[in-house]
Amino acid sequence: MKSVAIISKPGRPQLPEVAARLVKWLKAHSYAVLADTDTCSVLPGLECVARETIAARKPEFVVVVGGDGTMLAAARAVAKAGIPILGVNLGSLGFMTEVRLEELEATLDAVERKQAVFDVRAMLRCELVRDGNAAEEYEALNDIVVNKAALARMVDFDVYVNRQFVSNYKADGVIVATPTGSTAYSLAAGGPILTPTVNAFVITPVSPHALTNRPLVVPDESEIAIEVKQPQEEAYLTVDGQTGEPLRQGDRIVCRKSKHTIQLLHLPQRSFFDVLRTKLKWGER
Amino acid sequence: MKSVAIISKPGRPQLPEVAARLVKWLKAHSYAVLADTDTCSVLPGLECVARETIAARKPEFVVVVGGDGTMLAAARAVAKAGIPILGVNLGSLGFMTEVRLEELEATLDAVERKQAVFDVRAMLRCELVRDGNAAEEYEALNDIVVNKAALARMVDFDVYVNRQFVSNYKADGVIVATPTGSTAYSLAAGGPILTPTVNAFVITPVSPHALTNRPLVVPDESEIAIEVKQPQEEAYLTVDGQTGEPLRQGDRIVCRKSKHTIQLLHLPQRSFFDVLRTKLKWGER
Amino acid sequence: MKSVAIISKPGRPQLPEVAARLVKWLKAHSYAVLADTDTCSVLPGLECVARETIAARKPEFVVVVGGDGTMLAAARAVAKAGIPILGVNLGSLGFMTEVRLEELEATLDAVERKQAVFDVRAMLRCELVRDGNAAEEYEALNDIVVNKAALARMVDFDVYVNRQFVSNYKADGVIVATPTGSTAYSLAAGGPILTPTVNAFVITPVSPHALTNRPLVVPDESEIAIEVKQPQEEAYLTVDGQTGEPLRQGDRIVCRKSKHTIQLLHLPQRSFFDVLRTKLKWGER
Amino acid sequence: MKSVAIISKPGRPQLPEVAARLVKWLKAHSYAVLADTDTCSVLPGLECVARETIAARKPEFVVVVGGDGTMLAAARAVAKAGIPILGVNLGSLGFMTEVRLEELEATLDAVERKQAVFDVRAMLRCELVRDGNAAEEYEALNDIVVNKAALARMVDFDVYVNRQFVSNYKADGVIVATPTGSTAYSLAAGGPILTPTVNAFVITPVSPHALTNRPLVVPDESEIAIEVKQPQEEAYLTVDGQTGEPLRQGDRIVCRKSKHTIQLLHLPQRSFFDVLRTKLKWGER
Repeated sequence: MKSVAIISKPGRPQLPEVAARLVKWLKAHSYAVLADTDTCSVLPGLECVARETIAARKPEFVVVVGGDGTMLAAARAVAKAGIPILGVNLGSLGFMTEVRLEELEATLDAVERKQAVFDVRAMLRCELVRDGNAAEEYEALNDIVVNKAALARMVDFDVYVNRQFVSNYKADGVIVATPTGSTAYSLAAGGPILTPTVNAFVITPVSPHALTNRPLVVPDESEIAIEVKQPQEEAYLTVDGQTGEPLRQGDRIVCRKSKHTIQLLHLPQRSFFDVLRTKLKWGER
Repeated sequence: MKSVAIISKPGRPQLPEVAARLVKWLKAHSYAVLADTDTCSVLPGLECVARETIAARKPEFVVVVGGDGTMLAAARAVAKAGIPILGVNLGSLGFMTEVRLEELEATLDAVERKQAVFDVRAMLRCELVRDGNAAEEYEALNDIVVNKAALARMVDFDVYVNRQFVSNYKADGVIVATPTGSTAYSLAAGGPILTPTVNAFVITPVSPHALTNRPLVVPDESEIAIEVKQPQEEAYLTVDGQTGEPLRQGDRIVCRKSKHTIQLLHLPQRSFFDVLRTKLKWGER
Repeated sequence: MKSVAIISKPGRPQLPEVAARLVKWLKAHSYAVLADTDTCSVLPGLECVARETIAARKPEFVVVVGGDGTMLAAARAVAKAGIPILGVNLGSLGFMTEVRLEELEATLDAVERKQAVFDVRAMLRCELVRDGNAAEEYEALNDIVVNKAALARMVDFDVYVNRQFVSNYKADGVIVATPTGSTAYSLAAGGPILTPTVNAFVITPVSPHALTNRPLVVPDESEIAIEVKQPQEEAYLTVDGQTGEPLRQGDRIVCRKSKHTIQLLHLPQRSFFDVLRTKLKWGER
Repeated sequence: MKSVAIISKPGRPQLPEVAARLVKWLKAHSYAVLADTDTCSVLPGLECVARETIAARKPEFVVVVGGDGTMLAAARAVAKAGIPILGVNLGSLGFMTEVRLEELEATLDAVERKQAVFDVRAMLRCELVRDGNAAEEYEALNDIVVNKAALARMVDFDVYVNRQFVSNYKADGVIVATPTGSTAYSLAAGGPILTPTVNAFVITPVSPHALTNRPLVVPDESEIAIEVKQPQEEAYLTVDGQTGEPLRQGDRIVCRKSKHTIQLLHLPQRSFFDVLRTKLKWGER
């Protein structure tokens, strides 16, 4: 029997009702329902599965109910297995959770009728190289960020692209973002918007001391390396805004395009630009 | 007999001496020398050829002596014929004229020994569509710009990417730039830097009224269309900052990647980032 | 008999009804009503007065019905005479037209009961100095702008503050803005917001070629001078976005604080920040 | 006997020679020399005084040898006592240390002949209000900054000016800067430059999530309050980049103009704009 998994962000008042609607539709269409523990906690009687083990159950797709943060967590859980994700927003439109509650069943119907398209999003795979060894590996859908500790004056770092020296920077930090991440923190730091299908990443310095430092868009086949120059332990690495690691002098963060992608289920009649315009209130001044 | 053409910007005091050095090297290496009329005017005894007809003479390559403006003009003259260009700067380093005078002969030697690499730069090909007809065609190495007339308050325009509506904008103007053009006017208007090999263009609004409008990086296979909404004749089109055309309400500028490219001759030991760092004084505050 | 004048922007569908409500309130409170010709055209039976001669009739105050553009025009007509202005918006909130239609009578009642406060706004007085002579004088509530002609590559100009050389600039243009003007074109060009009571002006370059050029906030007692360096007639002067003058090489625009001010009538319960937050959709992402 | 104090940043190779030149000039002009402990460590035989007690000795003025960081520390030590400061840079020009080594004696001669002017710089005085009580007080010459902890996603805070609500912000942080501080961190975060005599402060959000949030310039008589909204202890306060304090939910930072000022000794022939142009490389692209 085919299954569909539900991953949700708990604590939202509409969640029990939305989960019930989802389950109703899925059962009516003969899907077994897998629910993460957060979803189970609001709707009794479901088969509960830890997020980390959902991929092993090979659902047809995953429905994520929440905001872009929940989506990032879900992506980390299922991206490697190539399982498509349908994002449903509770409240305000998200860049990745574009299905509105009132469109829920109609969108599921479209998915069922093979009318949805796959929006394939590139991911970053980064290594933290310490003392010459790959100490950690990370996969990011949005971005990896090196930033200063709260009481540090700045981070001093060098950037390399394809082992060519780009520049030394003194800044609050630096962001390496995918096209998906270009509308998140990188945008707040002054970066451009990359449409989802651009084969590029953007390296955005955060409040650089040198006023001529600017966001740099590089091919997504590039190897991007950030080397921390600071003597003290005053810099931190964060991945998709959700995990963190203190950095030392000489640490190198080396990023390439991941072999994994996120596959977002998506109705063709809503373009990336429609979402952009709504989220950023373009044309509304 | 193989030939090499010289295109230069007149009026610079060093030009006669530089031209003489170039001719000396070329003759010593058995090249026939073709000179554009500006170069002829400073160094007698050369075979003079109008810029427009240089391509028809099929030189092995073209040496451009001047700044980025001279380079743009030369590129327009020879890009369609696929002739490589070597840019020599008189005075300050240019993004495209990266050979310094003191490196002139050494660089030519490297070209002769096949040690130079080709830096292939994408170009834009745009049509001005008026009343449903393609009224004009343009090729741009840097950018095409729609901007307001001096006394107009703004330009009101719509942007489409692959026939999907992006947004309406009210702004001083809009720039569609190649990676090469990303370090020219687009940078002054707040755009990001695209490295030369990124398969992308950037659409940069100039002083948009809506503060959330941001530069947009799109794949270089995209069709980018700008539609002028203004009732009066208050907008102008410029191509590489050098030609201009008054626009009317309803005019559409439709751009795609050109089938032509510019081939810049380039020494592998000087990276794009070296040029960037020097031009923008990065790491120097 | 005391009078109140109405200045409005024609062509808006709600205008006849709004004008009638205004007239009704004014007559009920024993004011003679003066109407500019635009207002007369939508509501018969009023005493029509040309905008330019309204000040000579010494109304108690002027009600402006329209947007910020109409407000600027009205300010030019009555500022020198020190007549207060009440701005009523038709449609979207303006920075200067903050009274909503539904608040119209209540606001007039508050004005009548002396509960409104005066929001005094500084103005600029600029001279165009040509060949050593003051050729023209201008008063601006928002800004004076020197910008390039549509087909010019840039404006090349020097800025002086209190006869001290600030810098040479190569840019699309330069804006000298009052605090009131800081939320208009200067904001689109990257300038800061100056609250209405700051004793300062801001000099904002538009798309400067040098990436380190930044908006400069100077005391409002400063003499600010802009000197056009360009050989050709490729720069224009505009005042409050509404009048224009071609500039020549050597022309100097010399600005100081005007001795006139605009007195906006204003309810104390709506702060400048309330208007700012609503107009710029702060805190709403 | 009149005295002059020397405050210096240790560890610079030129320091012993510079200190010796200073001492020679001061003794030749019959000044007693007071040296902070850092200066004593490089030049034996001086009267050593802790920085904190220099003000109590009432020197005629203080010579600061170092960069802007040393200047900030010196200012904190002597500002309350109203003692003038002369800033000498070792190496690159500082915004506050504008005397070059080659100008050292000539500048001291000018000070002695009363040809130097006082550049009076406003300071901020801020209180940290916790649980309704003023827990700490700070004086800042440059800025006070509330920023996020390295692993926090953002700081959520409200800003008030004169007890009027300005806005809620979600950002990396917020800077309240004096005109002097406007060329430091605030500039890197996108703030404008305030000339030293503007009676204003600037409130600059750092990487705000809402793209329409902009730097806000307010009169320097304003009371500026920042209220931390975050539930966790994820925000920090720093003063002139040099001291730090973890903040809690509900903490308020309330700033006003200090009654103290910094008096920089300054030669009239070098304007603020000269320093600005040199530091920011304006007009040099």
